[in-house]
Amino acid sequence: MGPEDSVSERVLRENLWFYRAFESLDIAEMEQVWAHGDDVTCVHPGWSPLTGWTAVRDSWAAIFSNTTLMQFRITDAQVTAVGECAWVCCTENITSVVNGAVSESKVQATNIFVLRGERWLMMVHHGSPVYRF
Amino acid sequence: MGPEDSVSERVLRENLWFYRAFESLDIAEMEQVWAHGDDVTCVHPGWSPLTGWTAVRDSWAAIFSNTTLMQFRITDAQVTAVGECAWVCCTENITSVVNGAVSESKVQATNIFVLRGERWLMMVHHGSPVYRF
Repeated sequence: MGPEDSVSERVLRENLWFYRAFESLDIAEMEQVWAHGDDVTCVHPGWSPLTGWTAVRDSWAAIFSNTTLMQFRITDAQVTAVGECAWVCCTENITSVVNGAVSESKVQATNIFVLRGERWLMMVHHGSPVYRF
Repeated sequence: MGPEDSVSERVLRENLWFYRAFESLDIAEMEQVWAHGDDVTCVHPGWSPLTGWTAVRDSWAAIFSNTTLMQFRITDAQVTAVGECAWVCCTENITSVVNGAVSESKVQATNIFVLRGERWLMMVHHGSPVYRF
């Protein structure tokens, strides 16, 4: 990440790192992406929200333990940055193997990041099923 | 809205004004709540995202024309503010009459606002169905 990168490029790169961490199915990778405060929120598709890093982390650990493959193709990513806050709205085109079953799905995500030092850390991940195109 | 109000209180109030505008089923009310740029995004539950104020406005007009009653009870609202950006994660407990049919539903929302002058204007509304509690 060089100094020549724009804020939008950096945020989009962090957004892709989140999906690479998801694909890694490694909680240590996911820990690097997120802020770790009481004010982080994660909404997995169809779930009630999880608030605070401990609950969010536990949910990723549970998902990773049931999942053997997760592949994302991210489309229609739109980034907006306002000061030390930025968000990405994007579509996740997902191939997954969960509990032995292969599935293809589409999820709409809103991901909010804040600048902490040199890094844009995830504060909110909100994913939701798409069934009306 | 007095100068004694905290940022969190102001943002939560704007968030409730969004739901009052939704209940009013009046597009002029909804216009007051949103920023009107090309970078606003709206995800209605289960829909693909709509980007830009014209598309977002048209979607509200279409929803309002099919809806005769919309009542929200907002619970579990969590607000975070970072500079001139803020977001609210909240649960919408909804009673609605759409195309003549009464329904009760629960939607999880992430609403992002930016400070423009004295007002916090909506930049993103992402609503998604909740079916795992």
